[in-house]
Amino acid sequence: MTLLPFYVEDLIKTALSEDINYIDSTTDLLIPENSYSSAYFMSKADGVLCGVEIAAKVFTMLDPEIDVKFLINEGAEISRGQKIATLNGKTRPMLKAERTALNILQHMSGIATYTKKCVDAVAGTKASITDTRKTLPGLRPIQKYAVTVGGGRNHRYNLTDAAMLKDNHIDAYGSITGAVNALRQKAGHMLQIEVEARTLDDVKEALACGVNVIMLDNMSLDEMKAACELINGKAKAEASGNVTLENIRAVAETGVDIISLGALTHSVTAFDISMKWGN
Amino acid sequence: MTLLPFYVEDLIKTALSEDINYIDSTTDLLIPENSYSSAYFMSKADGVLCGVEIAAKVFTMLDPEIDVKFLINEGAEISRGQKIATLNGKTRPMLKAERTALNILQHMSGIATYTKKCVDAVAGTKASITDTRKTLPGLRPIQKYAVTVGGGRNHRYNLTDAAMLKDNHIDAYGSITGAVNALRQKAGHMLQIEVEARTLDDVKEALACGVNVIMLDNMSLDEMKAACELINGKAKAEASGNVTLENIRAVAETGVDIISLGALTHSVTAFDISMKWGN
Amino acid sequence: MTLLPFYVEDLIKTALSEDINYIDSTTDLLIPENSYSSAYFMSKADGVLCGVEIAAKVFTMLDPEIDVKFLINEGAEISRGQKIATLNGKTRPMLKAERTALNILQHMSGIATYTKKCVDAVAGTKASITDTRKTLPGLRPIQKYAVTVGGGRNHRYNLTDAAMLKDNHIDAYGSITGAVNALRQKAGHMLQIEVEARTLDDVKEALACGVNVIMLDNMSLDEMKAACELINGKAKAEASGNVTLENIRAVAETGVDIISLGALTHSVTAFDISMKWGN
Amino acid sequence: MTLLPFYVEDLIKTALSEDINYIDSTTDLLIPENSYSSAYFMSKADGVLCGVEIAAKVFTMLDPEIDVKFLINEGAEISRGQKIATLNGKTRPMLKAERTALNILQHMSGIATYTKKCVDAVAGTKASITDTRKTLPGLRPIQKYAVTVGGGRNHRYNLTDAAMLKDNHIDAYGSITGAVNALRQKAGHMLQIEVEARTLDDVKEALACGVNVIMLDNMSLDEMKAACELINGKAKAEASGNVTLENIRAVAETGVDIISLGALTHSVTAFDISMKWGN
Amino acid sequence: MTLLPFYVEDLIKTALSEDINYIDSTTDLLIPENSYSSAYFMSKADGVLCGVEIAAKVFTMLDPEIDVKFLINEGAEISRGQKIATLNGKTRPMLKAERTALNILQHMSGIATYTKKCVDAVAGTKASITDTRKTLPGLRPIQKYAVTVGGGRNHRYNLTDAAMLKDNHIDAYGSITGAVNALRQKAGHMLQIEVEARTLDDVKEALACGVNVIMLDNMSLDEMKAACELINGKAKAEASGNVTLENIRAVAETGVDIISLGALTHSVTAFDISMKWGN
Amino acid sequence: MTLLPFYVEDLIKTALSEDINYIDSTTDLLIPENSYSSAYFMSKADGVLCGVEIAAKVFTMLDPEIDVKFLINEGAEISRGQKIATLNGKTRPMLKAERTALNILQHMSGIATYTKKCVDAVAGTKASITDTRKTLPGLRPIQKYAVTVGGGRNHRYNLTDAAMLKDNHIDAYGSITGAVNALRQKAGHMLQIEVEARTLDDVKEALACGVNVIMLDNMSLDEMKAACELINGKAKAEASGNVTLENIRAVAETGVDIISLGALTHSVTAFDISMKWGN
Repeated sequence: MTLLPFYVEDLIKTALSEDINYIDSTTDLLIPENSYSSAYFMSKADGVLCGVEIAAKVFTMLDPEIDVKFLINEGAEISRGQKIATLNGKTRPMLKAERTALNILQHMSGIATYTKKCVDAVAGTKASITDTRKTLPGLRPIQKYAVTVGGGRNHRYNLTDAAMLKDNHIDAYGSITGAVNALRQKAGHMLQIEVEARTLDDVKEALACGVNVIMLDNMSLDEMKAACELINGKAKAEASGNVTLENIRAVAETGVDIISLGALTHSVTAFDISMKWGN
Repeated sequence: MTLLPFYVEDLIKTALSEDINYIDSTTDLLIPENSYSSAYFMSKADGVLCGVEIAAKVFTMLDPEIDVKFLINEGAEISRGQKIATLNGKTRPMLKAERTALNILQHMSGIATYTKKCVDAVAGTKASITDTRKTLPGLRPIQKYAVTVGGGRNHRYNLTDAAMLKDNHIDAYGSITGAVNALRQKAGHMLQIEVEARTLDDVKEALACGVNVIMLDNMSLDEMKAACELINGKAKAEASGNVTLENIRAVAETGVDIISLGALTHSVTAFDISMKWGN
Repeated sequence: MTLLPFYVEDLIKTALSEDINYIDSTTDLLIPENSYSSAYFMSKADGVLCGVEIAAKVFTMLDPEIDVKFLINEGAEISRGQKIATLNGKTRPMLKAERTALNILQHMSGIATYTKKCVDAVAGTKASITDTRKTLPGLRPIQKYAVTVGGGRNHRYNLTDAAMLKDNHIDAYGSITGAVNALRQKAGHMLQIEVEARTLDDVKEALACGVNVIMLDNMSLDEMKAACELINGKAKAEASGNVTLENIRAVAETGVDIISLGALTHSVTAFDISMKWGN
Repeated sequence: MTLLPFYVEDLIKTALSEDINYIDSTTDLLIPENSYSSAYFMSKADGVLCGVEIAAKVFTMLDPEIDVKFLINEGAEISRGQKIATLNGKTRPMLKAERTALNILQHMSGIATYTKKCVDAVAGTKASITDTRKTLPGLRPIQKYAVTVGGGRNHRYNLTDAAMLKDNHIDAYGSITGAVNALRQKAGHMLQIEVEARTLDDVKEALACGVNVIMLDNMSLDEMKAACELINGKAKAEASGNVTLENIRAVAETGVDIISLGALTHSVTAFDISMKWGN
Repeated sequence: MTLLPFYVEDLIKTALSEDINYIDSTTDLLIPENSYSSAYFMSKADGVLCGVEIAAKVFTMLDPEIDVKFLINEGAEISRGQKIATLNGKTRPMLKAERTALNILQHMSGIATYTKKCVDAVAGTKASITDTRKTLPGLRPIQKYAVTVGGGRNHRYNLTDAAMLKDNHIDAYGSITGAVNALRQKAGHMLQIEVEARTLDDVKEALACGVNVIMLDNMSLDEMKAACELINGKAKAEASGNVTLENIRAVAETGVDIISLGALTHSVTAFDISMKWGN
Repeated sequence: MTLLPFYVEDLIKTALSEDINYIDSTTDLLIPENSYSSAYFMSKADGVLCGVEIAAKVFTMLDPEIDVKFLINEGAEISRGQKIATLNGKTRPMLKAERTALNILQHMSGIATYTKKCVDAVAGTKASITDTRKTLPGLRPIQKYAVTVGGGRNHRYNLTDAAMLKDNHIDAYGSITGAVNALRQKAGHMLQIEVEARTLDDVKEALACGVNVIMLDNMSLDEMKAACELINGKAKAEASGNVTLENIRAVAETGVDIISLGALTHSVTAFDISMKWGN
C-alpha cells in the first residue's frame, strides 16, 4: 500500500473512536476477556477487492495478536461467495473491530469495483479513467488510492499541485491567453496547466498557448471528436461531465486521452462483504 | 443544527486542508486579492436539502466576510433548477471553498433525499426508518444527522450506548435468556437491550426475557408478520437486512416498528448541486 | 481493560508531556543513560487496586523494555504495606514515569475504593451503585471504568446515549406526559428514557407514560419508599442527591433499584501508593 | 486569568465532546431551537470561587450569544446561598453546557477553597503554601492556577523547570556534594536546585553545597525546627509529607519557608454549586 | 497572504505553547492585568519584510484587542532604523507575544531578503529562482511562501505533486527512457515530469522522451551551457547544486530557466528586527 | 537522547506528512514494492554530528524493517568525506524518508557544530555558552537539545520556568528593587530570578536584591569587566547581545559566567550531509 502509515492509523483511530467512545457495552460486559474465536470475510458480490491492509490494521490496532490472513490480493477480482480472509484471535477485539473494518473495506472495494467497470468499458481505446476532487471529507487518500487499485489514474490530488483554469480565472484576464501568460509569470516550473474549454475556439486558443491539458467540459460527442482532431497530441484532452457507464465507451471513442468521473468517489455503492464466525 | 460546532469545524478543516495543502495554485496566482464576486448554488435534481449551515461555514471559515444566504431551509424539498443559496464576497476564498462545500452539501443532501424516499414509502404504517452503524470513517455525525433531516430516526449511535446481542454474545451463554440475564447483572440501568432473533423461537425467548427491542434478522415477510403478532407491543420489532425501496412497504406492512437500512449511509448517491458564478 | 488503547495512550502522552515539556532536568543531567534499577509499588492504605494496565503503560511508553509486573490483579483488595508491583529497567525512564504513573493509579484506585465502600454498604439490598456525569474534563473514561472496578455500574455515559427529562424539558411541553410523548415522536428506538420526579404525583404520571427509569430527586426516605411501592417493578427507581456513606443503606432499604453518587468521581481522595527503589 | 486561551479552549472542547459525542438526545429532540431561558449559579457552601472565566467560556463556546455575568470575582470568598452568576440565552446550549461548566467550576473552587484553609491556618508565620506535581492528567494548569487563586504558590511546574535531587540522583554520585557538583557542570544557569534531606547531616551537606532549596522530607517537628536553625536563611526550607490541616500550623511554626501538599490537587473535594433555572 | 488560516493559527499555537506552557512567570506575576502599553517594531538591517500578517496574528490570538498596525507592506524593502509596525494594547499579552512574533517575522524576512538578493543577481536573464524541499519540519508553508515574497518561485511542494526521476528511479528501469515510459503508464495526466541529468547524453535522452523539465545536476558552467543549447526550449532547464550568490549570475547566463537553491530555506539568517516599547 | 519519544514522533509525522501528502508520485509509481537497496550518509563538511536517533527514526517510522546503523556517535566530531551511517532496506521507504531525515540531521548538526565553535573559542575561561528563546516554531526542543550536544548549555526553556525582569517589568514597580520584591511576594520558591542590567548602577541594585543572575545587556567589554568585578560571585553574570565568533573570547575574558547567543538557533547554517546509494 502506498499510503502513509500515519494517515491510515489516524483514520482508523477516528473510525474506532466514533464507534466505541467508552466501551462496547455488549461485548465488554458479556464476552470473557480470554475467549478466542475464528472468523472469515466472505464476498457477497462480484468485483475488485480493495483495502486489504487497512481492514487488517483495524483489527491489529485493537489487538496486535489477532491473526488476519487475506486469501485474496489487493486489487484482485473476487466473486460472490468467495472467502476473502481468515481471522483468529480474541473474540472481544474481533467483535469490536468488525463493523469498522467492513465499513472501510466495503467502501474501498466499492470504488475499485466501479472504477474497474469504467476501465473495462473503454478497453482498447487510449482513454484512461481518472477521479476528481469530488471526494468525501477526510477520505480523499483512501478514495484516490482505491481508484488506482481499480485500474484508474489520479487526477490532481488537490488545488495546490496543478493549475486548472476555469471561467473565473480566465475572465479575470480577459482571455485564455491572458490568463495562461499571467500564470506563467508566477507559477513554478513544476506546475502543470489545464484549461477548461467550452467551445472549439477555446480549444484552439488553449492549444496556441501550449497548455498541458485541455478539459472538454460537457461537450457533445461530436464536439469532443472535433476537439480531439484539433488537439492531435499537442496537449492531453480530458472529457468531463455527464459521463456514465452507458456512454463512457462512446466518449472514449471520440479520441480523448482522459475521462474523469466524479461518481467514482462521490456516489460510491458499498461492495457487500460480510464477516462470518467460525472457520 | 444539533451537531457540536467543534466537530463541524474540525471536519471542515480536514476537508479544506486535504484540498489545499499549501496554496490554490490557480486562484492564488491569478485572482487579485481584492476581487469580489457573486455566485449561487443551484439544484440539479429533486430531493431534500441538507447541510446548509455546514456548507455555509466552509466559506466563512476561509473568510468570515463572505455573505452566504440560503434561500431554502434545512430539510426542505427542492427541485431541479431551483436556486438554493446566494454568495457574495471575495473571489479567492469563494473559489477555494467551492468544491469542499459542495462535496459536503451533496453528500448530506444525498442521504436526506434517499431517507425521505424510504420514509414516504412506508407512510401510513407505524414503521419508522433508521440508520445503522454502517457509516464512513469520520462522517458518522453528519451522516446520522442527515438521516434525521430526511425524516428518519437514529439507531444506536455507537457500540457504547446500547446493547445488541448477536449470535456470538448469545453463544457465550448458551441461550438468549442466559446472555440477557448475564448482561443485566452488569449493565447500567440506562442501557437498552436489543436481541437479534433468527427464528420465531428466538423471538419468544427474547420476549420472555423482557428485552426492549427484537431484531428480526433477514426474515421473510411471513416470518416477520408472525413475529410481530407474537411481540404484540411487548417489545419493539426491528426489520433488518435486504430491505430496498422496492420491498420496504411490504416490510412495513408486516407490522414492524422499525426498519433499519445500511444503504442510507454506506451507499450514498451525491445529490447534484452546482455553484454558478454571477447573480 | 475494556478502554480503547488509543484513548489510554493519548491520556498518558498528555500527562507525561505536562510533566516533561523538554527534558527531566535532574534525571537527564545526572543519571547515566545505561544505569539500571529495581523498584516496587507499595500500598500505604487499604482498598481496591485499579489502573494496573494504565500505570504499567506509562513506563513502557517511555521505554518498552521496562519490565513491570503487577503482583495484584485489577480490582483486588489490597492492604497497607502490601507490595503491588515490581519494576526493573533503565533508571532514567523509571524516574521520569514514576509521578505520572502514581498520579493515575492513585486516582483510579481512590475511585474504586470508595465505590466498593458504597457497594458493600448496600449489600443484601437490590440497590446497585452508579456514577453520574459529574466527572473531570478528559478523565470520564478512566473514572467511569474505575467505578465498575469498584463494583459499581455506569449511569449513562453522556448526553447522547440516553434521555433524562428534567424540569426544563418537561416545562417545554406542559407535563411529563406531553414531553415523553414528544420525545417518542423523534427518538430512536434504542433510547432509554428516564424522568426526574419530585413528587409522588410525578412518579405516577411517569409510570403512566411507561418510562424506563424514574429518578427520585432529593426525596426523603419516606417519599422514596412510597415511590418504590408505586413503581413496584414497572420502571427502575433511582435515588439521587444527598447520599452519603452514612445514609446510603437507609436509602437502599427504601427499595430503590439504583443509587447514583456524584462524589464517586467529583470528590476523589487519592489512594496512597508509593514507589520504593530497590527490591 | 493567566492561562493560555488555547489550553483552556482545548480543555473545554475535550470536556464537551466527552459529554456530547453526537447530540444531546433529550434537549435537541425536545427543546425548540428558539427557546430562551434565564438561569443562575448558586453557591451551596462557603469557600473561594475559582474558574469564573473558564466556566463562562463553556457556555459561550457552545453559543457566543449566551450572556454570562459573574456577580462574584475570581478568588473572592462566597457563602452558602449566594448567587454567583446569571445566565441568559438560548435554552438548548445552556442545558448542554450546564454540567461541564459546573464540573470545572466546582473542581477549581474546591482546590482554591482548600488552599485558602491551609493559607489561613499558617497566617502570621513566614510559611507559604505550595502545590506539588501530584496533579491529574491534563488538568495541571487549571489545578496549579486554582492553588494560586486560593492564596498558595506554585512549586515547580514540571520536571523540566527546576532540579530536585532525590535519593536515586544522589546515590548515583555517592553523596549530595557529588551530585550537586555534577549537576552544576551541565545545568543551565537558570536552573534552581533543591535537595531532599532526610537527616540533619543531609541538611548540613546541602547547605555546604549552596543549594537553593532544602526539602525536609517526612521529618518530625523537632527535626524540622533543628533543620531550620541550621539553614537560617542560607537556603529555603521546604516541609513535605504528612501535612494535614490539623498539623499544618505546627509545621509552619518550625520555621520552614514552604509547606507543600499533594492533597491540594490529588484529593480535591468538589465545591458545591448548582445551576438554577429562572431569575 | 495565501496560506490557509488554520495552518497559520496552528503554527502560532504551537509556538506560543512552546514558549508559555503554564504562565509567563515574570509578566503574569508582575504586570497588572489592566496595564496598557505602546510599542513598535524597528528594522535593524536592510532587506525585504515578510510575515506581517502572521506576526500580527501572534498578538491578536493572545488578545484580539491588541491593535497592530504595519506601516510597511508585505514584501516591501525596508532599511535599518525604519519603523515597521506600531502596537497598542494590554501590556501582558504584548510581552508574552513579543518573542514568538519576532522569531517568525525574522525568519520569514530572512528568507525573503536572501531570495531577493538571488533574484536581483540574475536580473535581466531568463532564470527564475526557486526553492527546494530542503525545508525545516513544520515550516514548509511559511518558508515556501517567504520565497515567493522575495520574488522567487516555488519548486514542487512535495513528493506527491510532481515527479522527479533520480538515479534510483532510472536504474530500476535501465534507462531514462525506460523509466519515463513506465511512469507514463501509471501517472495521472496532471503530473509534471522532471529528470535529473548528469551528462549531456542524459540530457539528450530526456529530451527525446519529451519530459517537462531537465535538472542539470552539479554540472560545470560549460556543461550547463551546452545542455541549454541542446534543450533549446523543448523542456525547462533547471540548474541545481553548488549555487551561491557569487556564482549565481554566471549560472543564470548559461541559459537555464530555473536555478534552485536549498540554502534559501535550510540555512536562513534571521533578519534583525526588534520590538521597542514606547511610541 | 533525552527528548520525549512522543515529541520526536510527532515532529517526524509532521515533516513526513508535509513531504508526502498522498503518495510519492515518483517512487510509488516506479519502484517495485519488493526492491531493496543499500545506502549511506556521508559528511560533506567538518563539524559535530547531531540528531542521529531522530534521523534513524524517520526511516523506521516509515518502515520498521529498515536497518539504520550510525557509525558515528551523537555529538562526535566528523570530517568531510566521512561515512556517517549505513542503511539497508526496502528502496521505497528509503527514498521517501531521505529528504526529511537529512533536513533534520543537517539542521541539528548545524546547530551543534556552531555551538562547538563558540565553546571552543572560550575554552579556558569560566564562561559557558547558552542558547536563548530565539528558536523556530515547533523546533525548540530539537534546537535546545542540539545546543547541548555541541557543548553548550540551555538558558530557560520558556517564559514559565524562570523569571527575567526587563525594563517593562521594572518600570511597573519604579525600580529593580521594587520589582524583585513584588515578584518574591508571589513567585514559587523554585523560580530563579534574572534581571537585565543596562548600567553598573543597575548591577549594584540587582546585587543588593540578591537576584540569582544579572544580564549585562549590550554592555561594552569594559563595562562588562567592571560589572563582573562588582558581582564577584554573588550572582551569575550573563553577557548578551552582539556576540559573534570574532568577539566571543574577549567577552568571555571579561569574567562573565554565561554568554547567550540567539544565532545558535535563529540563524542556523545546515551542515552538509548527503545520502549516497550503494555501499
